[in-house]
Amino acid sequence: MNEEELRQIIRKIIIEETQSNTVRIGVSNHHIHLTDEDFNTLFPGQKMTVFKPLYQHNEFASNQFADIVGPKGTVKHVRILGPNRSHSQVEIAKSETYTLGIDAPIRLSGHLDGAPSVKLVTPDGEVTVQGVIVAKRHIHMSLDDAQRLGVKLGDTVSVEIDSKDRKTIFDDVIARPREDFLLEMHIDTDEASAANVGPNTVGKIMVNKK
Amino acid sequence: MNEEELRQIIRKIIIEETQSNTVRIGVSNHHIHLTDEDFNTLFPGQKMTVFKPLYQHNEFASNQFADIVGPKGTVKHVRILGPNRSHSQVEIAKSETYTLGIDAPIRLSGHLDGAPSVKLVTPDGEVTVQGVIVAKRHIHMSLDDAQRLGVKLGDTVSVEIDSKDRKTIFDDVIARPREDFLLEMHIDTDEASAANVGPNTVGKIMVNKK
Repeated sequence: MNEEELRQIIRKIIIEETQSNTVRIGVSNHHIHLTDEDFNTLFPGQKMTVFKPLYQHNEFASNQFADIVGPKGTVKHVRILGPNRSHSQVEIAKSETYTLGIDAPIRLSGHLDGAPSVKLVTPDGEVTVQGVIVAKRHIHMSLDDAQRLGVKLGDTVSVEIDSKDRKTIFDDVIARPREDFLLEMHIDTDEASAANVGPNTVGKIMVNKK
Repeated sequence: MNEEELRQIIRKIIIEETQSNTVRIGVSNHHIHLTDEDFNTLFPGQKMTVFKPLYQHNEFASNQFADIVGPKGTVKHVRILGPNRSHSQVEIAKSETYTLGIDAPIRLSGHLDGAPSVKLVTPDGEVTVQGVIVAKRHIHMSLDDAQRLGVKLGDTVSVEIDSKDRKTIFDDVIARPREDFLLEMHIDTDEASAANVGPNTVGKIMVNKK
């Protein structure tokens, strides 16, 4: 055993012993990110206003909404998140792909290659956005968290949800370390319902399950 | 090690080696079971007709529908399953408890103590049904399946879903052996979306995970 292997083992023991592998769970309802241009088309002459800050630094839920119109159906009153981005993007639950009639891929935010397009509609405008995805499970974390857990950007971990009646282990959870991120797992509303996640439910990160 | 312990170990090895712990997955959309009396109130002078048989013997999806009306909202066009039962019962997805505005417990079919009531409405009648539940994950199985897997009625097992992008392990899955049951895991639409279950996705039963 070399020093690095020994360090890995010790890190894992520390995590196990201190229970510091507990992770807060953030349930992402369907939402929309817009470019400045698309925002101005949908809300001409208006400014985005803050409804409430999200857990991650600088991110917020706005008071602005749009309807998502697909070939088969509409999902109404979907909240815009701020601040605006360099590419517009729509994130929906898997169950809503059937309502809309589109085959959105399961992807991390920003990975929009080949993702379908959809129309966004407000009382004052409409715009077509290329980039509808179902969010892939992921964990935001600081660089310190990543080191402590022994993971790097893109690694897959498992998270155990010890909820009442619907205990679940989510595999395929992508680690997303970044300097300014706070430790938080993001799942969508389908996943939250499936695992009976309530306001106080937490996850337990298992790095070495496989 | 006594003979019974040895038998248990050999059984597990056989299951592992033969992959006979594979289980078909049936996704249950929201549905309604009715008594003859409630059926006649909702569909006066009509007969229940078969839309298609379900996988379990004698169970079928009918061509009859009702709307579920809760204190907050309505879930429209929910299919009645047949044949009729001795107690009416409504099974919805967890996500629909928010739409309806009711706090339905996660229960096995027939376990309706303290479950909330809801109104069912058709063009020809309406009736109040005590017994709205969110179905608890379960596996129908024959008595032979139960013996082979080493489980009895009410035991909890885990099922691994090895799907694309959303691998998931469902714990808290109840074993339901009965002479006439065919091996099939039932999950609801939230759980199917959360684990990206498609038409050909199967589960792997893990009896001794804990």
